[in-house]
Amino acid sequence: MNDKALATAAIERVAGHRRRFDARFEAYFDALADDLGAPPFSRFTPRCLELLRDLSLRGGKRLRVALMYEAARLVTTEDVPGLEEAALSLELLQTHGLVHDDIIDDAPVRRGGASTYYAYLQEFPDRDRTALGLAVLAGDLAAFLSLRVLLEAKAPAELRQALLEVQTRAATDTVVGQVVDLERDFEPLPGEDLLHTVTEYKSTRYSILAPLRLGLLAAGEDLARHDEPLRRYAIPVGVLGQMRDDYLDLFGDESVVGKPSGSDIRAGRRSYAVSAVLAATTGPERAVVERALGDPDCAPETVDRIRDIARRRGVEDRLRSAMRHHAEAASAAAAEWRPFWREEAVAFFEHLPLWGMERTL
Amino acid sequence: MNDKALATAAIERVAGHRRRFDARFEAYFDALADDLGAPPFSRFTPRCLELLRDLSLRGGKRLRVALMYEAARLVTTEDVPGLEEAALSLELLQTHGLVHDDIIDDAPVRRGGASTYYAYLQEFPDRDRTALGLAVLAGDLAAFLSLRVLLEAKAPAELRQALLEVQTRAATDTVVGQVVDLERDFEPLPGEDLLHTVTEYKSTRYSILAPLRLGLLAAGEDLARHDEPLRRYAIPVGVLGQMRDDYLDLFGDESVVGKPSGSDIRAGRRSYAVSAVLAATTGPERAVVERALGDPDCAPETVDRIRDIARRRGVEDRLRSAMRHHAEAASAAAAEWRPFWREEAVAFFEHLPLWGMERTL
Repeated sequence: MNDKALATAAIERVAGHRRRFDARFEAYFDALADDLGAPPFSRFTPRCLELLRDLSLRGGKRLRVALMYEAARLVTTEDVPGLEEAALSLELLQTHGLVHDDIIDDAPVRRGGASTYYAYLQEFPDRDRTALGLAVLAGDLAAFLSLRVLLEAKAPAELRQALLEVQTRAATDTVVGQVVDLERDFEPLPGEDLLHTVTEYKSTRYSILAPLRLGLLAAGEDLARHDEPLRRYAIPVGVLGQMRDDYLDLFGDESVVGKPSGSDIRAGRRSYAVSAVLAATTGPERAVVERALGDPDCAPETVDRIRDIARRRGVEDRLRSAMRHHAEAASAAAAEWRPFWREEAVAFFEHLPLWGMERTL
Repeated sequence: MNDKALATAAIERVAGHRRRFDARFEAYFDALADDLGAPPFSRFTPRCLELLRDLSLRGGKRLRVALMYEAARLVTTEDVPGLEEAALSLELLQTHGLVHDDIIDDAPVRRGGASTYYAYLQEFPDRDRTALGLAVLAGDLAAFLSLRVLLEAKAPAELRQALLEVQTRAATDTVVGQVVDLERDFEPLPGEDLLHTVTEYKSTRYSILAPLRLGLLAAGEDLARHDEPLRRYAIPVGVLGQMRDDYLDLFGDESVVGKPSGSDIRAGRRSYAVSAVLAATTGPERAVVERALGDPDCAPETVDRIRDIARRRGVEDRLRSAMRHHAEAASAAAAEWRPFWREEAVAFFEHLPLWGMERTL
């Protein structure tokens, strides 16, 4: 197969994992109300579960789930125990993160619908505090469920413990990542090292490394032996993913991205794209950007103007070229897995980053 | 020993557990920064840990910890594995709950100091959203740490799993309890059954039942055999504790309680005390209460007036008598444990609720 055919094959595999997972995720939520055993009089608890379900089920590509199943396939094509529950755990932890993230960012929209926080604000127009409280609690519930589902995994006790260790470690790393992400926005001009570190903590560890580790663990692999080869792949994939999000927020098509352009600028987030624009501008152009940063009422026309400035100063091209660089580094790292893992799964990991590039540009 | 001597003995045992635990909790936080492995440049992460540490270490009576150790002593006086980590887990989960609770209630003060949320608001006077975000994340971190500490328990894998099951179940029950607690405040006049149910979910299950279960599990007891006897004790102790908090919020001495009187009224919480005042009043008196409910600026004089009304309508007496009733019911339930558990620990549980009464009145 040529590169294009291999990338298409990778896409199809991701789609297959997503279809199978989404059916299971729906079944999980169907059983959840009974399992939770809330008091019968409560109407707020079913509503909370409904909002968590809606947000969870309208969820994107399920790339984490695909990475995990394919990581197991690096070792074996046989069914291995623990994967189904680990997939639920990954996506429940993601739901937790999204719910709390949208509180932190005061974000009205998520995955093309209302964020959980804003759904509650609409339901309680005169009681902001109740809406905030219910959104905090919805996120908390998803966090605890993401670990509880692993405790119920039909897998040997030792494996269950190992999966739980990976997920709780990923969860605390992600919280630290979110903290340093907020800290980053106090840096006048965050450098590349800082941006990469923030990315590793706030997304790479739980979105890339944890799925790889969960899949390999379930397949019986000894993780200690493979820590460095996994990191050499995960780090550039994580940077690529974050850079793509940041790039699309400024340069992407609103209707495709599912939220208004320039939300990072309005929220004062010094993302890869925003930091690159700051670094590339001086004088009056820089002043336009600085004025817009953190202004929630910044007009779409101002975002358009910043986008034009960014293009003129080569920021778009530099970001594309950086993304290509990270995609290629990741592919090269996956290629090095050939001596110890199965060819067809290695090929999947090798082509996935290139697919990630294709989709953006 | 007579009743007073037994109550004093119970108090001393609680104090002993607290001293030993507090030293361990401090050591836990000393080791946490290294264990967490945050990026070296971050100053926000150490500050987050410091706030969690401050709130955790200025924590009250550690009644949960005492209940757990004494539950193990129902079975054996020998050291049993898992208890130390389970105690840390109980109090970290409590810290998580307090941090998020104070966001939900917009509460400036907790345990006689600034709530985590307000500590951040003071540090970021111009960036409310950053302060809110950091407080949400601090609570999330404590939640994940409360489960991670159990994964690291030096105990057999089967016990570790059982302890984790109790704690994650308690955690999800508590979230549901917080949700129905907010829901309660939309009831014009919540009845006793509803108030009791809310109490069971939002506090009894994690503060009373979970510690009892953790202690007994670690001591090798089969929980299924004892579920009903434990609930018969835990339910009235939980109601007693909640009723006491609600009572003290209206009738207690501010300097002893550690927060301003009437905070439930100002926050619009239909607590045991507030609901009892509503039920006991009509006409202009009821109107005074209804007007104050949910008014954050309600004057201390108005709270004083409501307290006077409540006293005149017999609310204070009725609450005291209800608390006495629940304390006696709990003592009687503990006395029934004699046939299968150790006498001195049974006596502790028998006298603890009576001590709880003494402290209030």
